[in-house]
Amino acid sequence: MNSSSNTFTQQLQSAWASQGSMLCVGFDPDPQRLPDTFKAKSEGIFEFCREIADATADLVCAFKPQFAFERYGADAVTVNPYMGFDTIEPYLKHAGKGVIVLCRTSNPGGSDLQFLNVAPNGEPLYLHIAKLAAQQWNASGQISLVVGATFPEEIAKVRSIVGDMSLLIPGIGAQGGDIDATVKAGSIPNHPGTGMMINSSRAILYASSGADFAQAARKVAITTRNALQAATKK
Amino acid sequence: MNSSSNTFTQQLQSAWASQGSMLCVGFDPDPQRLPDTFKAKSEGIFEFCREIADATADLVCAFKPQFAFERYGADAVTVNPYMGFDTIEPYLKHAGKGVIVLCRTSNPGGSDLQFLNVAPNGEPLYLHIAKLAAQQWNASGQISLVVGATFPEEIAKVRSIVGDMSLLIPGIGAQGGDIDATVKAGSIPNHPGTGMMINSSRAILYASSGADFAQAARKVAITTRNALQAATKK
Repeated sequence: MNSSSNTFTQQLQSAWASQGSMLCVGFDPDPQRLPDTFKAKSEGIFEFCREIADATADLVCAFKPQFAFERYGADAVTVNPYMGFDTIEPYLKHAGKGVIVLCRTSNPGGSDLQFLNVAPNGEPLYLHIAKLAAQQWNASGQISLVVGATFPEEIAKVRSIVGDMSLLIPGIGAQGGDIDATVKAGSIPNHPGTGMMINSSRAILYASSGADFAQAARKVAITTRNALQAATKK
Repeated sequence: MNSSSNTFTQQLQSAWASQGSMLCVGFDPDPQRLPDTFKAKSEGIFEFCREIADATADLVCAFKPQFAFERYGADAVTVNPYMGFDTIEPYLKHAGKGVIVLCRTSNPGGSDLQFLNVAPNGEPLYLHIAKLAAQQWNASGQISLVVGATFPEEIAKVRSIVGDMSLLIPGIGAQGGDIDATVKAGSIPNHPGTGMMINSSRAILYASSGADFAQAARKVAITTRNALQAATKK
């Protein structure tokens, strides 16, 4: 694996090693689904997320805030490649931060553009993005790619292009992506347990709507972390 | 021209007719460039924009807030097509609002993706987006496209695809797009003076940094509006 002076990548590599976990908890809280004690508070969403974070910090390699909050102090931002590299480059000036580029998204409309075959090789657009990211945009080592867990074959194709670049994989948990197939497809060859932030949001955040929400979240996080570890050993 | 029950489109058609103007003033204020009297106020940016709006309201077909503010009560939102139609569709549920899809952007990196040739016809991606928008996404008549003024030939190609869809054209004014070529390329055939929101931001907002900023903004807006009208008659 390349050594890297990049803080975000270093943090990830360190977390993969020390936590033994590729689990990433995504914070996209729905105010309607908060436990009742948080609904009434003006800072309820933040307190809820902090309690979930406290209950799962030793089980994850990263936390991922929702888009609207990630510009405020998060370790990484998610960016859309449609406008090209000069709209991504400014985020790379924050040397310690990761920049996560949308590549293959798991929503139903993701194929509208991402699956278009592009010249000169006729490869789908999302693989062209993966090549641009790996070969032209990532001189600083800060870039990761979003690749949905619902398409393990596509994760494998991206991995074959991007070397040891880290991938953010949404779609595990409530969205039902296959953990074994995802881990097999996306891990860095010869470095099991590394290379991905495998995101779970709702399955962990809303494991319980009662007073035991934090313990319930921890329990689901442990189960998911263990399933990821088991898949790594298969 | 199609009749339309859509409020945003109706407003535009009404403004093109009554104001005789395709000028759109874009609000992307830089706090550093506000006149001194506004810099000290907590609501200075909003007051500044309101004064510019008051000074130019009779000269424009639309105002365009910057992305970060447009979700709060603006008449239209700008959306990125990379994730596909199901990420655009929710905005169409606000029947009175316009939804402006990025198509061909005028920044230097715009060509990174937008100029890729895509199957099956080998057309550039931005024209494929124009086709998707016109033929599949616009049943409700709410969709417009962003097409940069720095590429008049490309505006003409988009116009030939999208019928009477309205286009938001950034790149006039400080960015130096050619007004005559833009008006010729983007107007709706046989309906001169309609079909575009031609955006100018900095040239109008920062026409003067003194106490006369509003009059100076109005003066530049008049000059620009007149140049657009003159181009329409050529």
